[in-house]
Amino acid sequence: MNCSILAIGTELLLGSLENTNASFIAGRLAENGIDSFLQVTVGDNEKRIHRALEFCLSSSDAVIITGGLGSTEDDVTKSALSSFFHRELVLDKEIESHLEERFAGIDRTVYQRIKKQAYILEGSRIIQPMGTAPGLILEEGDKLIICLPGVPGEMRFMMEKSVLPLLVSQGKGSQDVIISRFLRIVGLSEPAIETAIMDIVKAQQNPTLAMLPGLGEVQIRLTARARGREEAQELLGTVEKQIRERLGNKIFGIDEEDPEKVVGDMCRKRGLSLSAAESCTGGLFSSRITSVPGSSDYFRGSVVSYSNESKKKILGVRSSFLRSFGAVSKEVAEEMAKGARNLFATDIAVSCTGIAGPKGGTEEKPVGLVFLGLCSDSMLVSERMRYYGSRKDIQYRATQSMLDLIRRFLLGEQLGGRGN
Amino acid sequence: MNCSILAIGTELLLGSLENTNASFIAGRLAENGIDSFLQVTVGDNEKRIHRALEFCLSSSDAVIITGGLGSTEDDVTKSALSSFFHRELVLDKEIESHLEERFAGIDRTVYQRIKKQAYILEGSRIIQPMGTAPGLILEEGDKLIICLPGVPGEMRFMMEKSVLPLLVSQGKGSQDVIISRFLRIVGLSEPAIETAIMDIVKAQQNPTLAMLPGLGEVQIRLTARARGREEAQELLGTVEKQIRERLGNKIFGIDEEDPEKVVGDMCRKRGLSLSAAESCTGGLFSSRITSVPGSSDYFRGSVVSYSNESKKKILGVRSSFLRSFGAVSKEVAEEMAKGARNLFATDIAVSCTGIAGPKGGTEEKPVGLVFLGLCSDSMLVSERMRYYGSRKDIQYRATQSMLDLIRRFLLGEQLGGRGN
Repeated sequence: MNCSILAIGTELLLGSLENTNASFIAGRLAENGIDSFLQVTVGDNEKRIHRALEFCLSSSDAVIITGGLGSTEDDVTKSALSSFFHRELVLDKEIESHLEERFAGIDRTVYQRIKKQAYILEGSRIIQPMGTAPGLILEEGDKLIICLPGVPGEMRFMMEKSVLPLLVSQGKGSQDVIISRFLRIVGLSEPAIETAIMDIVKAQQNPTLAMLPGLGEVQIRLTARARGREEAQELLGTVEKQIRERLGNKIFGIDEEDPEKVVGDMCRKRGLSLSAAESCTGGLFSSRITSVPGSSDYFRGSVVSYSNESKKKILGVRSSFLRSFGAVSKEVAEEMAKGARNLFATDIAVSCTGIAGPKGGTEEKPVGLVFLGLCSDSMLVSERMRYYGSRKDIQYRATQSMLDLIRRFLLGEQLGGRGN
Repeated sequence: MNCSILAIGTELLLGSLENTNASFIAGRLAENGIDSFLQVTVGDNEKRIHRALEFCLSSSDAVIITGGLGSTEDDVTKSALSSFFHRELVLDKEIESHLEERFAGIDRTVYQRIKKQAYILEGSRIIQPMGTAPGLILEEGDKLIICLPGVPGEMRFMMEKSVLPLLVSQGKGSQDVIISRFLRIVGLSEPAIETAIMDIVKAQQNPTLAMLPGLGEVQIRLTARARGREEAQELLGTVEKQIRERLGNKIFGIDEEDPEKVVGDMCRKRGLSLSAAESCTGGLFSSRITSVPGSSDYFRGSVVSYSNESKKKILGVRSSFLRSFGAVSKEVAEEMAKGARNLFATDIAVSCTGIAGPKGGTEEKPVGLVFLGLCSDSMLVSERMRYYGSRKDIQYRATQSMLDLIRRFLLGEQLGGRGN
């Protein structure tokens, strides 16, 4: 089966919104062995939607359409389909009663607009929504037309839950499956990684390897093509093993295993509790840790001490340290970690103090200079780091290092070694 | 002039890369008054490139092509154009000598590949490159075909330096400028906004209005088309004023004015200091506040109290309150705000306690139930909120409400009114 992707939305043509839906759908189609050779984007304009539909249908077995299903004036996808395929828009009683229930008590004028979502194309089937706008499936001769909302979360829900199972079950033609796996690395630069595994990269045809540098992290993407899912996974596994033999613990996880999840899982498994004291990262570390469901199992809390006063009063950092070494120093980083560990009575505490910029840097202590601390029952260490980039980049990179510091501590690695 | 965008690259069809080039080009075209109604993406395949070219040319005066200009086997854009337009690929001596110079001493086998970049279409003009691959301009009848590399930095360089000046100077017909402005709203739903300003939306032709719902925020996009930048800004200003008369303070900012920046600026202007106590938002509020440069002018810090113990010990929440009302209650939200205000000695403190999910909900206190608190010298209030979505959605929405609560307090609005 060959499936094209048609994105509808004037905002996409104005450049105010990136078409992340197309790459998501394309990726999920590829992973499920469905060919996809064409993506088209047009605005909320019936005539242009017609032309694009014609083009897509002339070269594909199926078209996945995103966008224009909502209840505003702009949303013309359904009416464009109605005129293109000569099918009436009819009221679906079931959707209507769902909407009635969900929007009971709402202003009736507002409700009249929302009700637009209860109209579907004659002869089409409904895809159950996560939000309010349902998706539609339309069979027209031997072509399949699938309409999804433009809101990424709602679209993804329908893709996973309804569309992919349907397409896979109908899958004619190519049965090749393409699967990617991402090996995620903190604490090594892209050239360093490339040098370490260059011969593997060169020797590989299937899976192919690509290096994707990100913020405070590098990912190695392995992409395998095979007859079936299992065979592809096996190909990926073989090369992953080769790379792991070179990079070892530098690989902190694969695919969706974010550092905050990896560190959280390690703490939970060992029954260790965690707290933090943050200065230049301003709460970003805690926010990342607590974005993981179930993080209250190990995380007790943190203090964002954005003033010297709060460092002294809440964390017990000595005034003399602040005077002699300054707030951005290894001594204060260590005191902050110790203070957080005492305050929250946890097994481990991490800390961070630095200059996130863009102002506040000096020659001696430039923007991007950050000290990290870690305190446990047996250890009090700090590490000196230097980051580059924008304020947000520096803050994020610092939290990557805090997570990596905890991970290295839990792995029993040597700490405090980097320019400390 | 009407210009379509054709992206070439199999990686775009595999979903492993987002097509950020298309949105960049689309945005820059719009800002320069060039219409763009169509975007197409195809893989590195000559036949499919031909079909896509045909489709684009049939509805546009110009096509901007990105990708496939490099020196690998995959790069077939030039040879596809050659066969489509029946123009030979000829060696350009100037590019060749540049390449010779730049790659002097390189392995000759590698150089033979690189040399591919010195071939251009007969009769085409060169766009000077930033990297190695030059761009091409081809005039075919009254159509203009522009080829740019797929590497974003190189493409952007050529767009700014060569393509936009050319298109603007050739601009047949419309000399218009298109400028968008975004009005940003927290605390009103999309249908509610639309109802409030429906007549304005309907009456408007220029600027046009569109509603863009986001996470915990709705944006109204105004897009004006005019002869010049100034005239466009004036058109935008007139309609913005009309909308402000309806929505008033619900509009917290425009364009890049994020809530954390707006609230920060208000605090700075009034010389007020700010602190926070966060439970379910886990530090996200502080992280957003401190992502703004200069936030140490008004922000003193926060406590992320992720356990009952820390709520009592650090913030001074009464044990009896935790026992009687539970951690997720208006009483505890208020105690937390009071505690943070005392601890950090600030003018204002906000707090947040709730159930971010996905687990931990009960019938009485479901996932998404959140209480916000605010404490000042004259006021101690709380508000009860109910959010939907994923854990991260709920956390983000709660921080939107915290920021909005501070803003409404500073504007002297009535607080505590929502289902409190």
